[in-house]
Amino acid sequence: MYRSHNNGELRLEHEGQEICLSGWVQKIRDKGFMVWVDLRDRYGMTQLIFDAERTDASMVEKARSLGREFVIQVKGKVIEREAKNDQMPTGDIEILVSELNILNESKTPPFTIENETDGGDELRMKYRYLDIRRKPVRENLIFRSTVTMEVRNYLAKEGFIDVETPYLIKSTPEGARDFVVPSRMNEGQFYALPQSPQTFKQLLMVGGLDKYFQIVKCFRDEDLRADRQPEFTQIDCEMAFVEQEDILNTFEGLVRHLLKQIKGIEVEEFPRMTYEEAITTYGNDKPDIRFGMKFGELNELAKGKGFGVFDSQELVVGIAVPGCAGYSRKQLDKIVDFVKKPQIGANGLIWVKYNEDGSFKSSVDKFFDQEQLKGWADQLGAEKGDLLLVMAGDAGKTRSQLSTLRMEMAEELGLRKPNEFAPLWVVDFPLLEWDEETQRYHAMHHPFTSPKPEDMDLLDTEPGKVRANAYDMVLNGNEIGGGSIRIFDKETQSRMFDLLGFSKEEAKDQFGFLMNAFEYGAPPHGGLAFGLDRLVAILGGQETIRDFIAFPKNNSGRDVMIDAPSNIDDNQLKELSLKLDLNK
Amino acid sequence: MYRSHNNGELRLEHEGQEICLSGWVQKIRDKGFMVWVDLRDRYGMTQLIFDAERTDASMVEKARSLGREFVIQVKGKVIEREAKNDQMPTGDIEILVSELNILNESKTPPFTIENETDGGDELRMKYRYLDIRRKPVRENLIFRSTVTMEVRNYLAKEGFIDVETPYLIKSTPEGARDFVVPSRMNEGQFYALPQSPQTFKQLLMVGGLDKYFQIVKCFRDEDLRADRQPEFTQIDCEMAFVEQEDILNTFEGLVRHLLKQIKGIEVEEFPRMTYEEAITTYGNDKPDIRFGMKFGELNELAKGKGFGVFDSQELVVGIAVPGCAGYSRKQLDKIVDFVKKPQIGANGLIWVKYNEDGSFKSSVDKFFDQEQLKGWADQLGAEKGDLLLVMAGDAGKTRSQLSTLRMEMAEELGLRKPNEFAPLWVVDFPLLEWDEETQRYHAMHHPFTSPKPEDMDLLDTEPGKVRANAYDMVLNGNEIGGGSIRIFDKETQSRMFDLLGFSKEEAKDQFGFLMNAFEYGAPPHGGLAFGLDRLVAILGGQETIRDFIAFPKNNSGRDVMIDAPSNIDDNQLKELSLKLDLNK
Repeated sequence: MYRSHNNGELRLEHEGQEICLSGWVQKIRDKGFMVWVDLRDRYGMTQLIFDAERTDASMVEKARSLGREFVIQVKGKVIEREAKNDQMPTGDIEILVSELNILNESKTPPFTIENETDGGDELRMKYRYLDIRRKPVRENLIFRSTVTMEVRNYLAKEGFIDVETPYLIKSTPEGARDFVVPSRMNEGQFYALPQSPQTFKQLLMVGGLDKYFQIVKCFRDEDLRADRQPEFTQIDCEMAFVEQEDILNTFEGLVRHLLKQIKGIEVEEFPRMTYEEAITTYGNDKPDIRFGMKFGELNELAKGKGFGVFDSQELVVGIAVPGCAGYSRKQLDKIVDFVKKPQIGANGLIWVKYNEDGSFKSSVDKFFDQEQLKGWADQLGAEKGDLLLVMAGDAGKTRSQLSTLRMEMAEELGLRKPNEFAPLWVVDFPLLEWDEETQRYHAMHHPFTSPKPEDMDLLDTEPGKVRANAYDMVLNGNEIGGGSIRIFDKETQSRMFDLLGFSKEEAKDQFGFLMNAFEYGAPPHGGLAFGLDRLVAILGGQETIRDFIAFPKNNSGRDVMIDAPSNIDDNQLKELSLKLDLNK
Repeated sequence: MYRSHNNGELRLEHEGQEICLSGWVQKIRDKGFMVWVDLRDRYGMTQLIFDAERTDASMVEKARSLGREFVIQVKGKVIEREAKNDQMPTGDIEILVSELNILNESKTPPFTIENETDGGDELRMKYRYLDIRRKPVRENLIFRSTVTMEVRNYLAKEGFIDVETPYLIKSTPEGARDFVVPSRMNEGQFYALPQSPQTFKQLLMVGGLDKYFQIVKCFRDEDLRADRQPEFTQIDCEMAFVEQEDILNTFEGLVRHLLKQIKGIEVEEFPRMTYEEAITTYGNDKPDIRFGMKFGELNELAKGKGFGVFDSQELVVGIAVPGCAGYSRKQLDKIVDFVKKPQIGANGLIWVKYNEDGSFKSSVDKFFDQEQLKGWADQLGAEKGDLLLVMAGDAGKTRSQLSTLRMEMAEELGLRKPNEFAPLWVVDFPLLEWDEETQRYHAMHHPFTSPKPEDMDLLDTEPGKVRANAYDMVLNGNEIGGGSIRIFDKETQSRMFDLLGFSKEEAKDQFGFLMNAFEYGAPPHGGLAFGLDRLVAILGGQETIRDFIAFPKNNSGRDVMIDAPSNIDDNQLKELSLKLDLNK
């Protein structure tokens, strides 16, 4: 061992002990006859002192030759500091160094290894191994490790079995695009990397394992949006002989356990909201309920009053932004500009100031009198001093636009507090969604999701209205997990494939093994999967998942550190019976 | 929830309670006015009784309609059994059923769901979800889950951080063949699936994480030998600022922890043996030391005594098989035939019976007298009643042949006891091995393994003699883990790549990121990886890893259940800029 202690553990109680430390040179201060070095490792920082008088002049000389990020080993004595530093856990002591070994030198790093670095994103990713030395990145990775351990502890205690499912599986056109893996031994054939272990976990339930979990990498070959990764990690779970209620309770328990163990926060029973309610109240199926600004519908109050902009629209809907009645013209314009941005695409919005004196001032004073505006305010639950923001248009689009605005206002007002946690369940999702492009239904969750028994009759008549036994867990405006009760009989599954436009042959070819399994005594079952990357980021009070992944890929799916993907040689291609067919 | 209790937990103390159970029908016994059903789930088996007198005639009728593997739910009362079964934990009670719901029917399964099944391997793999219902398979999977949880508990307690490294990495020609993954977004380029996270874990050490572990899938596109899988699981670990001794102690601690927690066995400090010693004493670098039969070299005692077969050979070597002096002619012939099998390839062997009366009887009595044979016996540590088996030839081949024979004899004598555990370390492996075919050196462990400092001088003169700081953990004749202290300076690493025949350009192209990392203050580090599949199998007292994998592949790398790999459609190929190039 190159050390007797680490750089975070020495205290005044160690005074006088001869110790040995190793680590990286963080900083050197040279006062001529004395040199101080801050020595860093994963555990903390310790101050070293090289003193020509108390030790040896050559030592000071050698210390002076050190550079940032050199790896050194020192031996010396723990002494009390004259000038203590109460910002550092080791700030009461320093090490009077008697022996210094340079274990490895370092070139000057391309960016500073400090909490706030001068390195840009691309540079930090290229030298990710240096980026990881920075405390914020290191602590994120340690935090992730702690979270996964607590997840395992909870699930193991609840009787879940950790089962590894295969990575080399079968490609299916359903869902997102698969990454595929050519098979050398089976010429012309391909494996696919799993988008999730969905069918395998269902087969484990058919196999009687009763409670399964796995923390597992999944893969999707999608065009990457910001903060999406081609490989991502799921906490994947499934239970047999359960109803929706059992699953909600079990996994609500998991997240409550995490919040308590990791953040020291006790949360109440999670609120439950139907999909319908979430959409009408927050314009969104993953509402951030850390703050209010609930939607209020104004159709009755605002349409048919002579304001043409409203009259022709499907929906007039607004929110009351707390305490913003005093916004200046400039501030209001900024809000209007925000909703007009192409990503949001609204034509504009109406604002109403609910002044402290109870009067109203609005951009539609010509069309609505004070009493009418008071009616709006009441409908939106506004109080004096609030600012009402009202939008109109197609119901779906307008809700979505107002939802974005609601989040923006919350951000601006500091209502999205990173250390406040407001989880909820959104339930009763629609089973199917209509896809205009392909003119057919898609499964909203996935094709194995069970329709609600009471809606089964609608399957033939109005499939779009069928609700599913599907649920999402939402935390602070992010979907952190989702799942469903599964279909477990062959007939319903087969009917579902019909509805989704699979031919009998396609269904058999792609999911025949699952349909077969359902013929041999499949138990009722259901489950859920959490997106670990996002869960960890949110628990860590952040929203960028890349900061919680050791070696993330960039938006082109590249690892810029190792420079992958890359070309492979012709022999490899030949062994795989493949030829490149480039678009030139 | 479809049950109030599971099928393993009801006892006499529950007598009189109204309960609800769910599970699979294991067996039905029909006595006319009474029907008994054994109900099974993951937790056990409970006997149900349907009684026309005590409940309802229609219930008996319905019970009679059940078939094997039907999934049912019953409600009823716990009653004391008349004929108790002390082989079953629930054997004191049965359930007088008052309500029976058939949750799902089942076709007759293609093989019996019993501990000993009538299903062949191929059939069981095709219906793996049914195979998993069988207790031995289910218990293996639960056992695996328990082992991994204990591994995590130990490593977390020791301060190791669980870090996920990427699955989509870069292909390198070093080592075995990679599985590759075409990149759609980076035309004509490929990712590779990792054969191990080796370079990433080293970069994590450069990044200062200090102690890393991960239980991770790895991939090798090799022609599959029996009991090899294209995807397999490693317990992958790395530590910084350590020497070999620290690593051996840490991971010896892990396996001792597992043996204690899981098997209730306390083992002594692991013996350590050099590679050299393992080869000369057991003919093998993964000796099974649950039993003796150590090799004894007989060159001095047996060569030059007029027996031509020995005289010309490089090595004469033998073992003493305990208590087999009484073997019949037929038994001896069987041994001779065994070593002559093509897989072993010996020309024959010499046997010497060390009779109970102290006399010797051998196949070479014409050439060696009693005193000479006594000399052999002493050299082999034989006692009266033992059978000496002696082979001669080229040193390497002969040791390997005798090693196989030693294992065979141990098997025959029942010395390979599945519930005895004899771990050891084999250390000081050679750094390089000469490959006759390519006429160059290969890294025996991998190219990042550090030469022993005291052997550095030999690198230029006799590279084949350089020993490495490399070590294997061996358990019951299987290598369960291996690792090394790594090179951590650019110069040595670069010299190593030279020795292995990499051009500067190849080295830079494939491992440039690692060489770069070494220039920014890489700490001394080393690590180890365990093969989880094998570790679990051996701890489970078995040797077939497939029995401990939920969904294994067959020897052609196929998953016969889901029928993968399979063809993909032309669009998918086109998106990947690929064409099939089949050998027709």
